[in-house]
Amino acid sequence: MPAAEDHSAATVAPATGVSSPSAPGDVGLVVPRDFVSAEPFTFDSGQTLPGFTLRYETYGRLNAAGDNAVLICHALSGDHHCAGRHAATDRKPGWWNNLVGPGKAVDTDKYFVLCANVPGGCQGSSGPASVNPATGRPFGMTFPFVTIRDMVRAQKIWLDALGVKKLHAAIGGSMGGMQALQLGIEWPGFCRRLIVLAATARESAQAIAFNEVGRQAVMQDPEWRGGDYPPGGGPRVGLAIARMMAHITYLSDAAMDRKFGRKTTSPKANGGALTEEHSQLSMEGGAVTGLAPAAIEMKFEVESYLRHQGESFINRFDANSYLYITRAIDHFDLMAASGSLEAAFAPMASETLVVGFTSDWLFPPAQNRAIALALLRAGKRASYAELAMDLGHDSFLLESQELYGLVRGFLG
Amino acid sequence: MPAAEDHSAATVAPATGVSSPSAPGDVGLVVPRDFVSAEPFTFDSGQTLPGFTLRYETYGRLNAAGDNAVLICHALSGDHHCAGRHAATDRKPGWWNNLVGPGKAVDTDKYFVLCANVPGGCQGSSGPASVNPATGRPFGMTFPFVTIRDMVRAQKIWLDALGVKKLHAAIGGSMGGMQALQLGIEWPGFCRRLIVLAATARESAQAIAFNEVGRQAVMQDPEWRGGDYPPGGGPRVGLAIARMMAHITYLSDAAMDRKFGRKTTSPKANGGALTEEHSQLSMEGGAVTGLAPAAIEMKFEVESYLRHQGESFINRFDANSYLYITRAIDHFDLMAASGSLEAAFAPMASETLVVGFTSDWLFPPAQNRAIALALLRAGKRASYAELAMDLGHDSFLLESQELYGLVRGFLG
Repeated sequence: MPAAEDHSAATVAPATGVSSPSAPGDVGLVVPRDFVSAEPFTFDSGQTLPGFTLRYETYGRLNAAGDNAVLICHALSGDHHCAGRHAATDRKPGWWNNLVGPGKAVDTDKYFVLCANVPGGCQGSSGPASVNPATGRPFGMTFPFVTIRDMVRAQKIWLDALGVKKLHAAIGGSMGGMQALQLGIEWPGFCRRLIVLAATARESAQAIAFNEVGRQAVMQDPEWRGGDYPPGGGPRVGLAIARMMAHITYLSDAAMDRKFGRKTTSPKANGGALTEEHSQLSMEGGAVTGLAPAAIEMKFEVESYLRHQGESFINRFDANSYLYITRAIDHFDLMAASGSLEAAFAPMASETLVVGFTSDWLFPPAQNRAIALALLRAGKRASYAELAMDLGHDSFLLESQELYGLVRGFLG
Repeated sequence: MPAAEDHSAATVAPATGVSSPSAPGDVGLVVPRDFVSAEPFTFDSGQTLPGFTLRYETYGRLNAAGDNAVLICHALSGDHHCAGRHAATDRKPGWWNNLVGPGKAVDTDKYFVLCANVPGGCQGSSGPASVNPATGRPFGMTFPFVTIRDMVRAQKIWLDALGVKKLHAAIGGSMGGMQALQLGIEWPGFCRRLIVLAATARESAQAIAFNEVGRQAVMQDPEWRGGDYPPGGGPRVGLAIARMMAHITYLSDAAMDRKFGRKTTSPKANGGALTEEHSQLSMEGGAVTGLAPAAIEMKFEVESYLRHQGESFINRFDANSYLYITRAIDHFDLMAASGSLEAAFAPMASETLVVGFTSDWLFPPAQNRAIALALLRAGKRASYAELAMDLGHDSFLLESQELYGLVRGFLG
């Protein structure tokens, strides 16, 4: 476990577990911990909380100099659990387990790897689902508005408390890449290297539009109730719709055609597990999908896949968090304050690797290339790589020796 | 007016209006008419209705030989009103008024132009919102499942009744292009020319996925009630969500960035007309959007634009029709029956012009090119043109001298 320094304004929860590799190349069992800051935190909006919690995981060990730390920044629906398993029986490991582990591209034998759930999130960090001590009920929409800058400011307080003097690197895809860039701008010199994958310096109108439709699906669901729903309740139907739609934007036409094409579901699948899941969704939402005639009902495999995506998401994600985090992404605009990307990057002292993916149409290659070009124009050390992977925006999460090689080389 | 022949199985409603050009280049005031077939119509699904109605409009005059007719086939959210105005005070003319009129690319001085609302539609033709004579209530989801082939079979009965011996051409974009192709396959020799714009011979998994999310938004809305909602009621919120999302797929990233970029709405707009529209939507759905904090609420122009699209759609479109017609599009697959496009096209005797649009990512150029290539391989006369217009799928509806030139030349 890391040498955790006490910080006057923060309490690091007692160590509750040690990474114990169960197999070569895997960090093994991990235990999430909570960092609790008792210092008032003022958000970019001007709203202040008396303190905040970040749930996080670490893998590997912080060296004596405190300078071998690699921060992983998660995307919209990610969390602090990026590698290993919480229990030996876990069906799936953390979301970036293919990248992070002993001997992997982000080598936990060399680096002290950290990942925290962002503020505004719903996996243990302070967010709309957290209980407001003043009322004894979830904050809901009274939680302060969160920006990408708020996310990295909170993480900087946590990293300071853990004794991390300097980051060897910060790595993130999508919203994680936004955080990495913001970190490089806010504390020049704190972070030596940035790896920015499938990101953008400012969202396009199309990406804002998709997020807005998702938010409307959530907020127009009668169960949303202005964000004031009981824990475990809420706009499950609206959130599932939002996730189904968003999931299409994370893939590519080519990948969906290869994986599903126009394949139809078997009668068994129609009457089996997938329909059960769907009925569950319907019951929760009080809707009556079962009354649709067979011809209108689910027919194509891609449909049952999407419904499954929607269903599994509502069981792990808070609807208000979805509103907050998509809004943080929409508001992110490095050009807004300084007028140009070059000006925004002027204070930076990191070396940056930007990676775009050919099939990513949410944050397409051109938007990633623009980040690297602006860094170069601002006189910074920056590289751009474009990987021909056809899974769309989510390509950054895939197994790819090319990506691993780039990350390993840039970190070394 | 056309010389309407009586057809034993059909009644042509009495003429109620004559196209009287009010300005050069415009067909002027038009009156929609109803074709009522009293012959049983059996759908591809095997279900039979005792008859059906198609609402339609015509522009220009059928010649004595009955061979100067041009059929316009409409897309998902279109209808029979493709040119002229119903009243001098109409704010907008028909949806393809820029293409159809005296001296225009589809010249009503030369051609007898016809356009009918498809069966399954909701603008006067038989569809889920029509009253089932057996029950005195709307069919809702008991309306027979509709295919693209059903759409053209019903239109063929209507064209026969009007005395149209042969079509000079059939023209359609998107679902309209699907109908044109199906028409060419079903009655070789009936249609001399086909113009197919922004279409596909079979929908991709991505396009099916978007349609499915839209259907789920409709069907999971508690107001849908299995499709059994009162006239004027129904899943207005779900349908608005579906339309907002679909509208993004009709545009392009580039066009949205040019038109909206990251422009924000003025405080006036936020508190004014657009919010009123939104409140209306909320009231209908019983949701409570007004409670969201300002930072989560509408900020970007693209958002107010989309909400307006959703709001205006629910005032003119029936939710069950939306389910039926998107499903007809999803099921359209010219390869399914014969195993290859070439085999599907084997019986065709039309000349075909296929036009793809560079920025169309819903039915992209490659899918349009594939239609023309398969026609050529099947030994048919076919051409493919690709127009560099950046509005996305909806490019086919835009003013474009290039498109007009292609259509005019091909028809001449």
